[in-house]
Amino acid sequence: MSDIAKIVGVHVSTVSRALDPKTSHLISPEIVAKIAEVSAKLGFRPNAAGSSLRTNRSRTIGVVVPDITDPVFPPIMRGLEDGLSQRGYAVLLANTDGDEGREAEIVSSMLARSVDGLALASSKYDDKLIRQIDNVPVVTVIRETADPIAPCVIFDEWCGIRHALTHLVSLGHRRIANIAGPRGISTGHTRYEAFEHYRRELKLPLDKRLVVLADGFNEQEGERCAEQLFIRTTDFTAILCANDRLAIGAIDVLRRRGLRCPEDVSVTGFNDMPYVDRLVPALTTIRVQQYKAGYESAKLLIEAIESNPPKTMTPSRTVLPVELVVRGSTQHIALRGRARRGVATVR
Amino acid sequence: MSDIAKIVGVHVSTVSRALDPKTSHLISPEIVAKIAEVSAKLGFRPNAAGSSLRTNRSRTIGVVVPDITDPVFPPIMRGLEDGLSQRGYAVLLANTDGDEGREAEIVSSMLARSVDGLALASSKYDDKLIRQIDNVPVVTVIRETADPIAPCVIFDEWCGIRHALTHLVSLGHRRIANIAGPRGISTGHTRYEAFEHYRRELKLPLDKRLVVLADGFNEQEGERCAEQLFIRTTDFTAILCANDRLAIGAIDVLRRRGLRCPEDVSVTGFNDMPYVDRLVPALTTIRVQQYKAGYESAKLLIEAIESNPPKTMTPSRTVLPVELVVRGSTQHIALRGRARRGVATVR
Repeated sequence: MSDIAKIVGVHVSTVSRALDPKTSHLISPEIVAKIAEVSAKLGFRPNAAGSSLRTNRSRTIGVVVPDITDPVFPPIMRGLEDGLSQRGYAVLLANTDGDEGREAEIVSSMLARSVDGLALASSKYDDKLIRQIDNVPVVTVIRETADPIAPCVIFDEWCGIRHALTHLVSLGHRRIANIAGPRGISTGHTRYEAFEHYRRELKLPLDKRLVVLADGFNEQEGERCAEQLFIRTTDFTAILCANDRLAIGAIDVLRRRGLRCPEDVSVTGFNDMPYVDRLVPALTTIRVQQYKAGYESAKLLIEAIESNPPKTMTPSRTVLPVELVVRGSTQHIALRGRARRGVATVR
Repeated sequence: MSDIAKIVGVHVSTVSRALDPKTSHLISPEIVAKIAEVSAKLGFRPNAAGSSLRTNRSRTIGVVVPDITDPVFPPIMRGLEDGLSQRGYAVLLANTDGDEGREAEIVSSMLARSVDGLALASSKYDDKLIRQIDNVPVVTVIRETADPIAPCVIFDEWCGIRHALTHLVSLGHRRIANIAGPRGISTGHTRYEAFEHYRRELKLPLDKRLVVLADGFNEQEGERCAEQLFIRTTDFTAILCANDRLAIGAIDVLRRRGLRCPEDVSVTGFNDMPYVDRLVPALTTIRVQQYKAGYESAKLLIEAIESNPPKTMTPSRTVLPVELVVRGSTQHIALRGRARRGVATVR
């Protein structure tokens, strides 16, 4: 290090700081780059790799999401990155497209890069992968597993579905269809279970034709499920959808069939993702705290990594509160067939 | 390695593969985790760090964006990750919020982690940072610098503005306002320059009151600029906005002032970001290829990293074509003040 310091013309402590991911941000990129260059020439590349061999830490966390282009995930990613970078951790990001084989490949590749921990927003409800990871802390983000394996930071799905369903019931709806999410992941599974629970509790009619299961949380599946619903029956006045994208697809189908939302059919979503307040009709939905889910996951991981002796992570559930946001896509059943007063052509 | 192989009960080649980020995805996470654990106990942690010291490669690329929650960036990130992961590279992601000091810190931290290359979607038009990075390849993504320093993958901004402006002119508009983007970044700078160029070429009136500069590419700035425009003059029939988010903000202001889009004022955006086709009015905009910009940037970086001898990156420009997408937010001036026929209350 002192050789490098002499050649670059800096103090040896600067070289040391530039080598350590914890402190390298204190040094200008120009100096870090020069130090990296000189030490590479000297056969001693000063880097997190060296630092990691010394401390057994890479100060890097692996974040795995199904698809960062799904609007649910960027705020989660941002919360994770903010929480982690404040403490000197960098974030490796990868996408699985919901494929378990791909997820296993990614986790292998991240473990080979010596990540200090993993935040998985890609886990299945019946997850087989997490049990295989026993040398770094794992947190599941906005998803949990059927058997508690790792700590999870999730939304209060039960409360969200209860809010949406009681809102519809308070508007006089009783024949309420459910476009449920994929049951292979906890959000889909739990929202479906919660719907069935509160349907019984609220003494709404049991009609199996009114429940359609989606294979994915996207607009195409929303359309497919809504079409399937209409093939089965038209005897419903509202559709509760397991997320906003399914709701957007369902509203598209209503429109194609010459029906109006909310005048003919009320629709609710889940997530309050960006811009659903600007759609027409603006979507009644459940607001969740994606950013906070990411940020809290970062805190859990850092706590586990930095505790001395290293803490074994025991399963725990951090459940973030949700809230109902009432907008234009739901309406009282007494007004059915009537346009809302004051509806402008714009918005 | 042979000790580890014996303890874990695998062939030594499996240990070797598990150590190498290029090949670790071929081994199950369970085995990779076991090998990592055993070798850590033996004091030889098998990891990308070790591999990186041997090969001087981390097979990791740093990606820097202003804010992953801005809908422009997730598809870029996805294109980068797809292109890089196919070749065994992992992606470090960080957000700058447009802050140059933060960007420098992030780049230092990434260099200290031995990234093999950097993809910067955060660069300023007058960038000072890139020149300081001389030991790894750098590509700027959807942005370029005033002086060519690094290869860039950008959109055809000139063509996009020409399309938007000639579209408005073809609809009879001549008094066209411009909500221009921040000139400190190339997209804002170039779209403004292109607007002025084609305004002259199309012999549209010069009226400085009609041009407002935004400080950021977001809805709040769109609102602020539109309000400023109305304070200066109401003598315009269309607003060309430097991106979709500015356009959304501008349309909000029209609505607040009791004006309709497009009946009273036509508005165009830029980017065709997700869901602008579902707004009311659906936004006329310029479609750009964000995913492809990310993917092409990945290709450029890998080519530079893997060429033998390592290729010094010379400035180059990859310009991706754009296209005009005409939707409901623009209308012929002859129909001004009239509602479009067949406008339903829903959509």
